Amino acid sequence: MSTPPIIGARIPQLGAREKVTGQAVYTDDMKLPGMLYGAILRSPHAHARIKRIDTSKARALPGVKDVVTGDDTLKVAYGNWRLVPDIQDEYVLAVDKVRYVGDEVAAVCALDADTARRACELIEVEYEVLPAVFSVEEALAEGAPTIRAEKPGNLSLTREIEYGGVDEAFTRAEYVREDTFRVPTVSHAYLEPCSALAAPDEGGRVTLWTSTQTPYIVQVLLAKTLGLPENHVRVIKPQVGGGFGGKMELRTWEFCAAFMALRTGRPVKFTLTRADELAYGRRRHAMVLRSKIGLTRDGVILAKDLDVLLDSGGYNAMGATATFLVGNFGAMLYRIPAYRYLGRYVYTNNPPASAMRGFGAPQALFAGECQLNMVAEELGIDPIELRIRNAMQAGDSVPGVATARTCGFREALEKVRDASGWVEKRARKRPGKGIGVAGCSFISGGVFNWFDTKYHFTSCEVRVFEDGTAHLLTMASDIGQGSDTVLRQILAAELGIDIHKIRLTAGDTAVTPKADLGTWGSRVTLMAGNAVLDAARKIKEMLAGVLFMEYDLNQIHDVAFAGDRVFVRAKPKRGMDFGECVYKALRGRRGEPLTAFGYYTPRDKGLVTPAFSFGAQVIEVEVDEDTGVVSVEQVHTAHDSGVPINTMAVEGQLEGSIHMGLGYALSEELITVEGRVRNATFLDYRIPAAEDMPPSASYEIVTRDPEGPYGAKEAGEGLVSPTAPAIAEAIWDAVGVRSDTLPITPQRVLEGLGKL
Amino acid sequence: MSTPPIIGARIPQLGAREKVTGQAVYTDDMKLPGMLYGAILRSPHAHARIKRIDTSKARALPGVKDVVTGDDTLKVAYGNWRLVPDIQDEYVLAVDKVRYVGDEVAAVCALDADTARRACELIEVEYEVLPAVFSVEEALAEGAPTIRAEKPGNLSLTREIEYGGVDEAFTRAEYVREDTFRVPTVSHAYLEPCSALAAPDEGGRVTLWTSTQTPYIVQVLLAKTLGLPENHVRVIKPQVGGGFGGKMELRTWEFCAAFMALRTGRPVKFTLTRADELAYGRRRHAMVLRSKIGLTRDGVILAKDLDVLLDSGGYNAMGATATFLVGNFGAMLYRIPAYRYLGRYVYTNNPPASAMRGFGAPQALFAGECQLNMVAEELGIDPIELRIRNAMQAGDSVPGVATARTCGFREALEKVRDASGWVEKRARKRPGKGIGVAGCSFISGGVFNWFDTKYHFTSCEVRVFEDGTAHLLTMASDIGQGSDTVLRQILAAELGIDIHKIRLTAGDTAVTPKADLGTWGSRVTLMAGNAVLDAARKIKEMLAGVLFMEYDLNQIHDVAFAGDRVFVRAKPKRGMDFGECVYKALRGRRGEPLTAFGYYTPRDKGLVTPAFSFGAQVIEVEVDEDTGVVSVEQVHTAHDSGVPINTMAVEGQLEGSIHMGLGYALSEELITVEGRVRNATFLDYRIPAAEDMPPSASYEIVTRDPEGPYGAKEAGEGLVSPTAPAIAEAIWDAVGVRSDTLPITPQRVLEGLGKL
Repeated sequence: MSTPPIIGARIPQLGAREKVTGQAVYTDDMKLPGMLYGAILRSPHAHARIKRIDTSKARALPGVKDVVTGDDTLKVAYGNWRLVPDIQDEYVLAVDKVRYVGDEVAAVCALDADTARRACELIEVEYEVLPAVFSVEEALAEGAPTIRAEKPGNLSLTREIEYGGVDEAFTRAEYVREDTFRVPTVSHAYLEPCSALAAPDEGGRVTLWTSTQTPYIVQVLLAKTLGLPENHVRVIKPQVGGGFGGKMELRTWEFCAAFMALRTGRPVKFTLTRADELAYGRRRHAMVLRSKIGLTRDGVILAKDLDVLLDSGGYNAMGATATFLVGNFGAMLYRIPAYRYLGRYVYTNNPPASAMRGFGAPQALFAGECQLNMVAEELGIDPIELRIRNAMQAGDSVPGVATARTCGFREALEKVRDASGWVEKRARKRPGKGIGVAGCSFISGGVFNWFDTKYHFTSCEVRVFEDGTAHLLTMASDIGQGSDTVLRQILAAELGIDIHKIRLTAGDTAVTPKADLGTWGSRVTLMAGNAVLDAARKIKEMLAGVLFMEYDLNQIHDVAFAGDRVFVRAKPKRGMDFGECVYKALRGRRGEPLTAFGYYTPRDKGLVTPAFSFGAQVIEVEVDEDTGVVSVEQVHTAHDSGVPINTMAVEGQLEGSIHMGLGYALSEELITVEGRVRNATFLDYRIPAAEDMPPSASYEIVTRDPEGPYGAKEAGEGLVSPTAPAIAEAIWDAVGVRSDTLPITPQRVLEGLGKL
Repeated sequence: MSTPPIIGARIPQLGAREKVTGQAVYTDDMKLPGMLYGAILRSPHAHARIKRIDTSKARALPGVKDVVTGDDTLKVAYGNWRLVPDIQDEYVLAVDKVRYVGDEVAAVCALDADTARRACELIEVEYEVLPAVFSVEEALAEGAPTIRAEKPGNLSLTREIEYGGVDEAFTRAEYVREDTFRVPTVSHAYLEPCSALAAPDEGGRVTLWTSTQTPYIVQVLLAKTLGLPENHVRVIKPQVGGGFGGKMELRTWEFCAAFMALRTGRPVKFTLTRADELAYGRRRHAMVLRSKIGLTRDGVILAKDLDVLLDSGGYNAMGATATFLVGNFGAMLYRIPAYRYLGRYVYTNNPPASAMRGFGAPQALFAGECQLNMVAEELGIDPIELRIRNAMQAGDSVPGVATARTCGFREALEKVRDASGWVEKRARKRPGKGIGVAGCSFISGGVFNWFDTKYHFTSCEVRVFEDGTAHLLTMASDIGQGSDTVLRQILAAELGIDIHKIRLTAGDTAVTPKADLGTWGSRVTLMAGNAVLDAARKIKEMLAGVLFMEYDLNQIHDVAFAGDRVFVRAKPKRGMDFGECVYKALRGRRGEPLTAFGYYTPRDKGLVTPAFSFGAQVIEVEVDEDTGVVSVEQVHTAHDSGVPINTMAVEGQLEGSIHMGLGYALSEELITVEGRVRNATFLDYRIPAAEDMPPSASYEIVTRDPEGPYGAKEAGEGLVSPTAPAIAEAIWDAVGVRSDTLPITPQRVLEGLGKL
């Protein structure tokens, strides 16, 4: 069977027109009858005990309809890691203590937003300010203040990976080096700030529209914090303007909207500002990574020892995943026979970090890939050649953790080497110009059930109709990445119908089938895609029988679905329109509609993912030695994302990744002084602008993954990692400055050049 | 097995609190981002040819976003009777001709409603006014103008029923009389005027929120008139403030909202005024009924010959159903061995009539019951005794049409006779006081597939969850009658869980399972209720196995569902909470949620209905002989609606029926002069007010219908019929005035008394 032409096609996102013309509805666009506006009072202190809250003046302000504090809530600790209740440490509103500047203390809803904000100012909170810590080192120091009573010493959790006899292996190493890298905290900088709108529903139920990546997770945790049965809470995901990991947990405004909607009997909406997002929102983990590597003189890796301190901020959030994934990605890309990882997740009084695109990989690969480039320099081996010598191959495992069943890493390295003119450019030095390389790998969804769901990891329903159309219902969440299109491509390919005939309903926990764990870990194409395949197969079984009856077919025949037709594969004239076939099947079922459910849960796939992507990137830069400004002149990317379903969407992900990688490399950092973010505007927090985007050439290394639908793997996150280490290497190649710290600002370059 | 206690309970409507506090959202409450406001230009002429429409001035008005006329549309004739395309005669906007005052000619949408209305006034329409007819007699007269070219002579359709040899039977009759009755056109007077809001949906699809009884029918016909695949149209029924038959067809504003939403790319809303509704809305058919009846001298009915002229107005609408049902109800209530019916549906230039509560019964039974009272008088037989002598009994048939498998008519007559003190009150004349009786019967849903659906008549989905809750999805439409509560009672009874644990999603054609034909003909409890039973049975099968595994049960055991528990019926301690049982089943299904579909289509149930209700009403009045004012002093009603599911809801229907019957009897008539309604306000069109409601006593005659869920039959429409003939009889009893015409206004009473 050949792959249907819609697989791998270049299809603009279905719904793109609605987005660019402003028709698409985002949460903050919505207005319900009688709606109230919410505002949040946040802690001005990084660490303090709440002694007293007086809301009477706020309540007395005309137009105020409700004021709530932690005392009004059930005081249930919650968090995404339901599997390990010990690390569920967050409250919807502060209980007794605040742990970072911005910790949510109270909320107000009122007839208008101005009144709600004014009322917040009228809430009187008496704090006992406590000593605070703002770095992992301070937090772990003897005598540091305790941020969470259950975790004296501020060590929230540790994760270890070890195999292959690391200490022994290092003794055999002919070359060993150890480096420490520091990466900053950065913002997701999604274009749509968080917004949540809740309305009371019949019988004490509540409906929440929210800008989220994970409607099911929000439903479950919201029910827990409200003390309602899970299914009394309905969460609907409208259009979402980006998430990147920052919208995958239950958040205070979601709770407060729902809680106050139930209390007031009126819809309540909260929308954050950009300043809120930058100052208090989730962010990528700052880390300190100490990496030790041992090799033979020929550049064969023998051992690696990675020690990472992660800055949690005031709450754990997705800390357990972060801590594991850094260690996992530290072991990826290369055959590392002996590996040891110790990750320590450390509470501080900074704003809490959590998942962000690439989750663990940008940090681990900045350290690992920079270090490998240093090794190459010292061993006198070309960095690409060194990588090829050690590159993982299909079938390689991280022992006890995961197996890469497909792997196009070596091909990716060769492709960017050849396409970029690497050999020549590295050989012929030009003033201020440099070229660097880095690799990457990422997961295609996770297999570890940290949310402890009892349902399939993803589910869908497919309905087909006699008008030739179909309807795909899924809780999988398109947050801008285009999965709503990709899933319909897969269904269109399976049913052989025009993709425009497929209606999609997504992300409504009361309607779309239970469950889906959400959009994170680049899981949607592989997982939700497999569920679509499962449902489509069942639908096709229902339809195939129509042809067998109609044409009295020998039962060895196969039925094909293509061109909006259903036909005997070996005798294509024996067939009928798809809609007609559905009609006959419907008649045969005496009026029972044709609908099928599809499910997917990865089973027996280790601890990480069913499938790894791989990639390599070569970047050319010019460095201005007077100003320290780094200009990226060309990016070459080769990427093994399996079989691309939507080539245009894969390219979009690639471009977005480069954009984000550029910022991570050169300009982005939430400058946080004593827990206070000092650059909470897009003027001061610099993401690359459109004119900063460099020319880019990209190459797909097609592998056909046995687990992915039509062989697809992830495309949304892996490529966010290589840009920073490749740029760092290119800067070194250009001007001899090595950076072990991000971002590589002009100031750091000048410091490296000894000019500051 | 005993009936679960929730069956027959008195349960206030779930959601009643939301309605009375204003939380419930009706269509006109909704406001979408960028929404436009629509207005309709209607014909000022009862019959005219459209020669030219110039919309240029309207288009030029600032704020106007779109103007459409019939020329912009596909000019598709449509109507509910898809089975007989010949009588689909309506256009969404007038094509070439207008046929009544109010016929929709053009529509506008603008930034605000005032601008839309002003723009309508700027549309120039050049008409060639044609001769018009305003009564069925005029319309059928030789040389009458032709309203629809395909139907010269203006006879839209005829329906005939005949059995038993009528002419021969009349020769055997010892007593024969013939009377002609006239009933006026009246308004549904639902509290919520029609409103429709459409928004463009991705990929050229459209979503319509509309105040409708029939989302599926609106979906199908809207798709046809828009030229879209059926499933590109999504129709959602928000809260609906009454329908009574007036909201069961696709209407112009629904089309225009969707059409202009697609054209402008913005949401568009239309909301009618009360004046629109009264002047141009659907209405109950005015009829002229000539009834001839023959009996033995002992009062045994031998034959009946009924000839009815129905005033269609300008379009057929639900004419075929109306014409059949009048004939059907003409044959009901009594054993009539020989029956002939001729119904003629006649186009006039009045506003179109269509379905209204009781559909055909109020007219047929006003004629039939009044005539029977006259017969009783002349034969010297007590009217109740005469009825009992002839009353249908369980198992009786209308030959070739239907069988009443249960029938509590005789018991109902006896009950109201005894409870009202009938015998004594009829015997002892008191000045100005009178007492009258009438009977009624109605259908519990129709079995005739006039809409020509390929789907089950009704469908539902039931999902159950490990938190002990369930979710019922149905396209059945609660339009205020309380079916959302009744269906949940049935599900709660089946699953043995608290009704408050059941979420309901209803009336969304893209979500709730295909299909349901809507709310009309008192079909919902019986049909959608049976679908719920079907789905619940499947769910219970999934759960029963858990107990068998858990307790290693002998397979002859039965499993019971009650008190939020699932247990072995014979050993109730062997069991578990409902939610725990679902949890175990979910685990056993490896994460596949528990969901089941249920369906119902009546099969082999004749031409009318699976089950007939019966009832009898005795009414006491006082007539002021000076003013002609009739005061209803007491109503006694006995009603066989099978087993009531929600006794409070049945009473609510009873009270509503009496209210509507009172208006029909005494005050309501859309006074229409040359096609123009002259009393298009609630000041001039008099429905009874709260203080007009008389004391009322009601009695349930419980029969257990084999087809109805738990034995239930209809309760919503039958009782709208007996009030007018019972009042007419009571007035005769009081002051000797017989009325063959409704409403029996003070003027008509005074005329009858010879005082005018």
